[in-house]
Amino acid sequence: MKYARVMLGDVEGYVPGEQPKAADVVKLNTNENPYAPSPTVLEALFAFGPDALRVYPDPVALKLRAACAKLYGYPGEEWVVAGNGMDEILALALRTFVDPGDAVLTPYPTYSLYEVLAKLHGAVYVEDDLDESNQLSDSFFEREARLCLLPRPNAPTGVASPTEEVERLCAEFDGIVLIDEAYVDFAEDSCVDFPKRFDNVIVARTFSKSYSLAGIRLGAAVANPDLIAEFLKTKDSYNLNAFTQAAGIAALEDRDHFDATVRKVKATRARLTGELRGLGFAVRDSQANFVLARWQGRPGAEGIFEALRGRNILVRYFKARGLDDCLRISVGTDGETDALLDALREIVL
Amino acid sequence: MKYARVMLGDVEGYVPGEQPKAADVVKLNTNENPYAPSPTVLEALFAFGPDALRVYPDPVALKLRAACAKLYGYPGEEWVVAGNGMDEILALALRTFVDPGDAVLTPYPTYSLYEVLAKLHGAVYVEDDLDESNQLSDSFFEREARLCLLPRPNAPTGVASPTEEVERLCAEFDGIVLIDEAYVDFAEDSCVDFPKRFDNVIVARTFSKSYSLAGIRLGAAVANPDLIAEFLKTKDSYNLNAFTQAAGIAALEDRDHFDATVRKVKATRARLTGELRGLGFAVRDSQANFVLARWQGRPGAEGIFEALRGRNILVRYFKARGLDDCLRISVGTDGETDALLDALREIVL
Repeated sequence: MKYARVMLGDVEGYVPGEQPKAADVVKLNTNENPYAPSPTVLEALFAFGPDALRVYPDPVALKLRAACAKLYGYPGEEWVVAGNGMDEILALALRTFVDPGDAVLTPYPTYSLYEVLAKLHGAVYVEDDLDESNQLSDSFFEREARLCLLPRPNAPTGVASPTEEVERLCAEFDGIVLIDEAYVDFAEDSCVDFPKRFDNVIVARTFSKSYSLAGIRLGAAVANPDLIAEFLKTKDSYNLNAFTQAAGIAALEDRDHFDATVRKVKATRARLTGELRGLGFAVRDSQANFVLARWQGRPGAEGIFEALRGRNILVRYFKARGLDDCLRISVGTDGETDALLDALREIVL
Repeated sequence: MKYARVMLGDVEGYVPGEQPKAADVVKLNTNENPYAPSPTVLEALFAFGPDALRVYPDPVALKLRAACAKLYGYPGEEWVVAGNGMDEILALALRTFVDPGDAVLTPYPTYSLYEVLAKLHGAVYVEDDLDESNQLSDSFFEREARLCLLPRPNAPTGVASPTEEVERLCAEFDGIVLIDEAYVDFAEDSCVDFPKRFDNVIVARTFSKSYSLAGIRLGAAVANPDLIAEFLKTKDSYNLNAFTQAAGIAALEDRDHFDATVRKVKATRARLTGELRGLGFAVRDSQANFVLARWQGRPGAEGIFEALRGRNILVRYFKARGLDDCLRISVGTDGETDALLDALREIVL
């Protein structure tokens, strides 16, 4: 390709999980929430008149950022930036805090988008292997980089580093630590208050998982106002459309719906984990809305993945080091979980 | 700012036109369309159920891209990329085709976002002054750069280069030429078929102006499939939410509404131009949904801007070389235009 940047030749592009068109698919492959978002979200959207489409949205999403700040326990919107999904927050972190050629540190394995984004930015991508308990190794704390992307809970392991370890990292790391809390609402604790104590820490959230709003593309991050001011320079001027801003505000308001949804997902996760273990899978306790199930029998994990697919049940299989004997399974409804477990019994027993 | 990239210290960030909260403002400052979008757009949005919010949108916006391809006269979606507003298309063009340190060429004056995006990307921003007719100078054709951003019609001048000149540029330029056709639906002709003949040409469009959809954030670009494939690598994986994709498809379908809206804007533009000339402003014939009105009397252009503002009428004033005796005035409804002209008569006569 004559005109493209040479570096793009090395970049594959991120491969999202399959989005099937058929309605009868049990879709446990992209960690979507199986429950609908709060009805207040559609109500807010349906209240829009044509003028809201005609004019530019608030370029800096003030109301939405203020609502996030309130929920996260911060004094005002100057602590928050909002983005077109967590994806944009992550890409902005690179563009704002990393020069091409600088190092970006992540654990391995982790969310595969990190590597794509780092390479697209021309950064040096440094991975440090998790230990056997899927925790950060000692070597992780010795690494130097401009930016550390630390998912907590991690994907696809579902394991969360102890907050004291993350705190130590934030204190010792000479660069920005972005704690990706995409799945944290399904976890036991959070680092959302760290930016109050550390001026090098960004805590990023998404509305795609616990708020059931993957379709609207909304993420947010909390950090020291000095960092937020830099984000506001690098983001696209009108990065969030009017609908997404309104949907986010409405979703944040309905705490009852949010709590009930998270509770249901956690209950099903506990049952799924137990049943998978009963079938012979090795499954760590997950802090996310998915589980990573390791399978060392026959057929191999890839065989199970294909057999499930043949039954219209989608899970995620990664042909990657340390993961190729695993399935990542999103926590669906109880009915979807039953369908998965029935199919697994047929395949592995 | 210890952690931010040093280069950001030189970047101001783009300053969008003011978005007032008050309802009684005559808003002629951001080139929005004064008429509502097609009713089919809200119908499409109100048909959404909660599941459309819960799941990820189509990451590659196939249906929307196919609809754009059809309208632009191309065989299929492989010729089109869609983005979160024209802003994302422009930013992606830099990320896809320009290495930091490479040159980006634009005319001067032009859309001020280009400079912000080029600087954020670490590119060298090269401006070549338009001639006295607001046309490209001979020197423009001699410049070398990795990417040329050529708005046609240009903003804020409203003038369009002759298509033969653009064609010559595309043939001679040793790099990518992105023709920014944000305002082209208000012009007499277009370069939308150039990518069929030139493998280095991208023609970019927005839904913000002629489709009255600034609030949903949607842009699209047509180019050779090899260029589009590179765009698909660099864009965020789910860059367009489900609503925006559906709104765009619905808007493209209603040609009658589109034609009627554009016709009304053009008619008002002709009247506005004539009346402004009658008041002593120098106004070139505009091919866009705004006019650039030069004023060399008293009070100066900035004084008029402030006086209009005092009457709750917003237009755009740029304190920039060659523009500081001008007002850029969006074409509003006939009523808004009357209000503007009445106020101008009070101020300047």
